[in-house]
Amino acid sequence: MLKFNCKNAASFLSDGELEALQAQLKIADCALHDGTNLGADFLGWVDLPTEYDKAELQKIKECAARLRREVDCLVVIGIGGSYLGARAVHSAFAQSLTGQIKNSPEIIYSGFQLSGDYMNELLAYLKDKRFAINVISKSGTTTEPAVSFRILRSLLEKQVGSDKAKSLIFATTDAHKGALKKFATEKGYQTFVVPDNVGGRFTVLTAVGLFPLAVSGVNVDELLAGAGQMQKLCAETKDLSNPAWKYAALRNSLYRQGKAIEILVNYDLRLNYLSEWWKQLYGESEGKFKRGIFPAAVSNTTDLHSMGQFIQEGSRNLFETVLWINNSNSVCLIPDDPQNIDGLNFLSNKNLQEVNHNAMLGTSLAHADGGVPNSLITLDKISENELGQLLYFFEYACGLSGYLNAVNPFNQPGVEHYKQNMYALIGKPGFEKQKEILEARLNK
Amino acid sequence: MLKFNCKNAASFLSDGELEALQAQLKIADCALHDGTNLGADFLGWVDLPTEYDKAELQKIKECAARLRREVDCLVVIGIGGSYLGARAVHSAFAQSLTGQIKNSPEIIYSGFQLSGDYMNELLAYLKDKRFAINVISKSGTTTEPAVSFRILRSLLEKQVGSDKAKSLIFATTDAHKGALKKFATEKGYQTFVVPDNVGGRFTVLTAVGLFPLAVSGVNVDELLAGAGQMQKLCAETKDLSNPAWKYAALRNSLYRQGKAIEILVNYDLRLNYLSEWWKQLYGESEGKFKRGIFPAAVSNTTDLHSMGQFIQEGSRNLFETVLWINNSNSVCLIPDDPQNIDGLNFLSNKNLQEVNHNAMLGTSLAHADGGVPNSLITLDKISENELGQLLYFFEYACGLSGYLNAVNPFNQPGVEHYKQNMYALIGKPGFEKQKEILEARLNK
Repeated sequence: MLKFNCKNAASFLSDGELEALQAQLKIADCALHDGTNLGADFLGWVDLPTEYDKAELQKIKECAARLRREVDCLVVIGIGGSYLGARAVHSAFAQSLTGQIKNSPEIIYSGFQLSGDYMNELLAYLKDKRFAINVISKSGTTTEPAVSFRILRSLLEKQVGSDKAKSLIFATTDAHKGALKKFATEKGYQTFVVPDNVGGRFTVLTAVGLFPLAVSGVNVDELLAGAGQMQKLCAETKDLSNPAWKYAALRNSLYRQGKAIEILVNYDLRLNYLSEWWKQLYGESEGKFKRGIFPAAVSNTTDLHSMGQFIQEGSRNLFETVLWINNSNSVCLIPDDPQNIDGLNFLSNKNLQEVNHNAMLGTSLAHADGGVPNSLITLDKISENELGQLLYFFEYACGLSGYLNAVNPFNQPGVEHYKQNMYALIGKPGFEKQKEILEARLNK
Repeated sequence: MLKFNCKNAASFLSDGELEALQAQLKIADCALHDGTNLGADFLGWVDLPTEYDKAELQKIKECAARLRREVDCLVVIGIGGSYLGARAVHSAFAQSLTGQIKNSPEIIYSGFQLSGDYMNELLAYLKDKRFAINVISKSGTTTEPAVSFRILRSLLEKQVGSDKAKSLIFATTDAHKGALKKFATEKGYQTFVVPDNVGGRFTVLTAVGLFPLAVSGVNVDELLAGAGQMQKLCAETKDLSNPAWKYAALRNSLYRQGKAIEILVNYDLRLNYLSEWWKQLYGESEGKFKRGIFPAAVSNTTDLHSMGQFIQEGSRNLFETVLWINNSNSVCLIPDDPQNIDGLNFLSNKNLQEVNHNAMLGTSLAHADGGVPNSLITLDKISENELGQLLYFFEYACGLSGYLNAVNPFNQPGVEHYKQNMYALIGKPGFEKQKEILEARLNK
């Protein structure tokens, strides 16, 4: 079971500092259930682990089982919350070298950026492959995935014919409305639902995350079960013994003290996309009203040799949240060297995991000594159940944190600004005036 | 040729603000050449592009040419500055999907972290491969690469025999002293030199970076030539028309105004490791005396859908440095859709690169409007020459920046703290007392 420990932050807190937030936490916690605060229309994620549509889940598993037999790879088309959850969990189970899970269809991501070189590479790569497409977009009009879907759909139809292509395209989108839903209905694609009351960054436990994960071989029942355990804990424990309460209280206290940056630290590169998911979850939920904690991430011990100097001795405006996995999947013993050239024979016959563990413990103490409060999230191993707990833990703490920070944790109004400018500059009809203004600024 | 433009930061600067730094810049610039400031023993990188040892370069190219014929992959063993430079440049030329350059030996990285699962994967992967090893370590006693070298050397010797293995192991290390140099001499390995006067994070244009890059098919002569062009510019232009001066002045001004975070922004995921290299370069050079700009990175348009909200509307303690490549390697046209389901027919027959470009322009304006000053570094294309310019530009500006910030840009005293704790906890002889103290703290 997930554990949260903030011993290495204790000396940075005054007596009673976390406890002083309990009143606000209680209100925040209630609001996540009764919708009495901002963003009440987007609380669907709170009950997802236990209340997720059983028929939809069954359909997800059946379609995934078929694809696992029929294709070499699944191209997941989505951006932001439409792919980061799946990618976070998939990467955790994948091999680091290949990025894929052994003996399962490859999962390839597309529509998450605008590189033409990437698209051309992908087209060449898919040429001799049996592939399927899962296009994920609530509206169907977001530029990156829509463009990618245009291109890849056309390739698939060329490769297998329009009829067969229908059985290999899966649209995860709005239940009733929107461009993608309309098109999927017309074409007869299998569709899955992005629920109206779950914002993009909270959708990992809906079809958005579950379908690609099921295709990749991840046990989605166990993922939901783990999340369900954390849901139960959060529903029942309304004080600082709830790890989500404690994490929210700690980061909020440190932020109020002036710590402007939170670094999520892992010691296993398979968790790097989990950090990317976390960065969106917290950055997009809290970064508004000209405030919020800047979310960053490092992967150790790699980054101890790049960001380590700064974290140890640079600006003291940061704190760390360390994610540690107790057990590796395999044992790797360090061989003895009779010559002891490198002077490391004190490590002979030790498991690398043990060295990594001591690096984590030693680093956490060193950083606390250097003025960087840090807390520790521990999982037993990389399993679906434990990752499910972790996802829900972060989501719940994020909801609490947003309310503590007096913002709506479930909107993202700022994401539109660049899109408007991009549409104008590229010549979207209706944006002519704006185009003129922007071009004048660019040519100044 | 590299261009630097800070129009989108202009409104955040008072009249004469950058110019006011010219006196300090002049002193800083002199110190990089005459060694009259801190870290004078580590200025070897300044003249590397033009003064790099011709015989060493010849040897690098010959050995690389042989390996390109003889092996399927090269395992580069190194951590921090011992691999990030090579990885940054290699990734820029590699395919995004495979991480490798077509028709060249694979470059695989090891010894940059402590995951036993990763090592076991790598051992399985190399089993049927013809591979060589490039172990990169000034001392030979850094834990991560040393452990990795123990394990992989043993595999290679088993696979091809000790004699043949000798011709497939390349040690990049100190010219005269240290554990790895001693061992390489004993064994008769080919060695390359990590110069004494070039710190790890500035070694990309020594054998540390050049040898693996040459094996991967990167034209290292052109890389050095491009860096040489920027070296010449920096040697000749001692005012704010020098892009390195301007970048250093801008980031220093913004930092003095309270901007605590710099985000390096790219619009092509092949540049993500360049950002990692940049983070080490700036973070490790400036993060000391409890100050310095926190370096972070995003890759767009991907991260506009995760970190975009924060950057647009969150805490106003950040600024952006955008890296833009004018030309993609290939053309990818967006197909027309007669049904126009997604409403994107205004993009029909446009090159994706053009959409990406307008996304960059639109985003930069939107962020400036939102209170985030941003500047723009432009390269014509991803070529060795242009990347060489960029590497030197960042290095030179980093040296200037460190001196403006009144720190030694060339040391990294803080990196030792975690190592001491790790050694103690894992039971290194001589650390018994420290082990006791740390364990008492951990068990508290």
